[in-house]
Amino acid sequence: MNESAAPGRVGDVRRRNLSLVLDSIARTGDAKPSRAQLAAGTGLTKAAVSSLVADLVESGLVSEVGLYRDGERGRPGQGLELSARRGVVGMEINVDYLAVGLVDLGGNLRFHSTVESRNRGLAPDKVMERLGALTAEVKAAAAAENIAILGGGLAVPGLVDEQRNVVVSAPNLHWEREQLNPQSLLEGAPLGVRLSNEANSAALGELWYGAGQPDFLYVSGEVGVGGGVIIASELYTGPGGSAGELGHIVVHPEGPACSCGGSGCLETFAGQEAIFEAAGTPAGSLGERTHLLLGALAAEDPRATKAVHDAGRYLGIALASSARLMDIEAVVLGGHFALLADWLKPSLLSSLERYAPGLLDPSRLTVSGLEHSGTLLGAAGQVIRSVIESPFEFLLASKLA
Amino acid sequence: MNESAAPGRVGDVRRRNLSLVLDSIARTGDAKPSRAQLAAGTGLTKAAVSSLVADLVESGLVSEVGLYRDGERGRPGQGLELSARRGVVGMEINVDYLAVGLVDLGGNLRFHSTVESRNRGLAPDKVMERLGALTAEVKAAAAAENIAILGGGLAVPGLVDEQRNVVVSAPNLHWEREQLNPQSLLEGAPLGVRLSNEANSAALGELWYGAGQPDFLYVSGEVGVGGGVIIASELYTGPGGSAGELGHIVVHPEGPACSCGGSGCLETFAGQEAIFEAAGTPAGSLGERTHLLLGALAAEDPRATKAVHDAGRYLGIALASSARLMDIEAVVLGGHFALLADWLKPSLLSSLERYAPGLLDPSRLTVSGLEHSGTLLGAAGQVIRSVIESPFEFLLASKLA
Repeated sequence: MNESAAPGRVGDVRRRNLSLVLDSIARTGDAKPSRAQLAAGTGLTKAAVSSLVADLVESGLVSEVGLYRDGERGRPGQGLELSARRGVVGMEINVDYLAVGLVDLGGNLRFHSTVESRNRGLAPDKVMERLGALTAEVKAAAAAENIAILGGGLAVPGLVDEQRNVVVSAPNLHWEREQLNPQSLLEGAPLGVRLSNEANSAALGELWYGAGQPDFLYVSGEVGVGGGVIIASELYTGPGGSAGELGHIVVHPEGPACSCGGSGCLETFAGQEAIFEAAGTPAGSLGERTHLLLGALAAEDPRATKAVHDAGRYLGIALASSARLMDIEAVVLGGHFALLADWLKPSLLSSLERYAPGLLDPSRLTVSGLEHSGTLLGAAGQVIRSVIESPFEFLLASKLA
Repeated sequence: MNESAAPGRVGDVRRRNLSLVLDSIARTGDAKPSRAQLAAGTGLTKAAVSSLVADLVESGLVSEVGLYRDGERGRPGQGLELSARRGVVGMEINVDYLAVGLVDLGGNLRFHSTVESRNRGLAPDKVMERLGALTAEVKAAAAAENIAILGGGLAVPGLVDEQRNVVVSAPNLHWEREQLNPQSLLEGAPLGVRLSNEANSAALGELWYGAGQPDFLYVSGEVGVGGGVIIASELYTGPGGSAGELGHIVVHPEGPACSCGGSGCLETFAGQEAIFEAAGTPAGSLGERTHLLLGALAAEDPRATKAVHDAGRYLGIALASSARLMDIEAVVLGGHFALLADWLKPSLLSSLERYAPGLLDPSRLTVSGLEHSGTLLGAAGQVIRSVIESPFEFLLASKLA
């Protein structure tokens, strides 16, 4: 470095501007900006925008939408959007089910399939085989709709090493240091398959495709209870990448043993199975048990009501502690907490008022509108975001840059 | 913006390079770099470094140190350091005491004074008056040592609005929305006085002047229990600026009422007064009670031993929950937790092992070496860091830029 600023290399400038234009198209969303609007919004010249857009359209990432009745291609005034003909597959392994979805670049869930599958204690190879069968459905749906699959995101309920495709620890699956081969699910997809944590993916799904607020804690309710912390529109992962383990906040020092090896964790009071057990819900599939529990709650069964009331109270304690430590001002409930919200919220709110009065405004405690698809959207969304941030690499790989 | 990078204005470049040079001098610390070494380290030309250093020396921020026996000024080979003739006053209001210290730009505590003062429930004006008297001692010490005072930092045990000089809430002082006028403590100091939270300041003191690691949770043990979270060598403050309230993590759902309005908070089990009370330490000044408690512990008094054991157990629960949520991998104990560490650590470590087995390596749980001066160093250090990051503004104000 010397006293004058070093000019960027031409490749760097194009790299940055491709991302700038693609990101502008992504942010504008339904408005479908024209080239002229992109030039005005980014400060780039119209000629530069046209050249960049030409590459993006050729790569298939962006498509033109006729805004005029004559709809001629390439004319000024033509709108631009992230292509609905390119998609990323979201996949989820959870304790009691497998799910897949096809998300187009604009973030629309174009196909969605969930099957119950008792994965706890099952060998990863076996689970991946079942997931492969489900993924075949997505591929068929994509082919039928003429959508090219660029890559995939696979969410699991545990701590992952994304670089090495290792599930470091997923106690509720009984998996420890399991090597996966997620690429095998989508052979040939140019962007490959990216492994992620389920609660983090759901939080990112909520950020990008849900109600959208810059700072919140997403609470994932499955067999395990997870959390994803979004600060300034970014996922907070912590120095070692394992932040957000809301389910293992200690809510009672004399509480029961937890799958994590600790005790008194939130999950032992508010996880799906903990609630079913406390409510006396008979054994059965996840769908059956959920149906029975909701029925019992509707019928004001006292045991079911108390189970959910207690879960809400302990969730309130964990949220009070989280708000104190991380200065969390908004909470989004997902998974079974979303399903149970009507019965859960009263005790949750009174617990917050008892343990952290005035700290969390009740109006900032909301329920995710994405239901279970949040995880799929977030898992796929991470791959979509990586293309939006680095389209140059994608174009290079497609030999277009 | 257009496709070529805009060159920086000359003022911007000089601004950036002044900070670059000053920061290099600060980081090199005891090595006292020469102008040639600075040029090599920063990539700037020797001529540019000489011109920048001349301004920094003239402003008084940097001083030259003769490295050769003949010690002629201005010759090549002369070492440079942050000036020991410029200082910032660190000040602390706590529940039972007031403290002041003089910190030179190199981070050396040159003078230090603490007086007991029962500030709880006292009007802020009265406390500020007492602090003013103590600050007069610092001014006299600075004059005697020929150190010019550039500004000050004032730490209080509560949530502050730094921009407006308001203590938003300090429950243990019984202060709510109190307007302070900290500038009056150091009339005429060019950098003014900056208000900060006590635990955050202590954490920054530890980061800059203590053992120095990029990621840790600092635990402040006073009448209140506070926390300061350092992530990637930055203070994590959260969206609203009130993160790190470790003392108000709920560690027992049936625990006693807390000064914060909640209940079962860590502070009700592990704050100074909670420990004195549980230990049966007779009433008295902070110094007397601390002396008595340490004596009782040394004599293996069962009540004192149990009180500290329980505090350690509950601190372990709060640290387990914090580590789960924020992925904290290292903890530094300060305040009374540092004083009591020998008696506290066994129960703290076994609690961590019970509630979050394997999560925090016991070797990463350390005691601050700064004792109570950490808060003063951090409060002053924030002002020193602001000069190192923006020396241009300081030079402008001194009419040197």
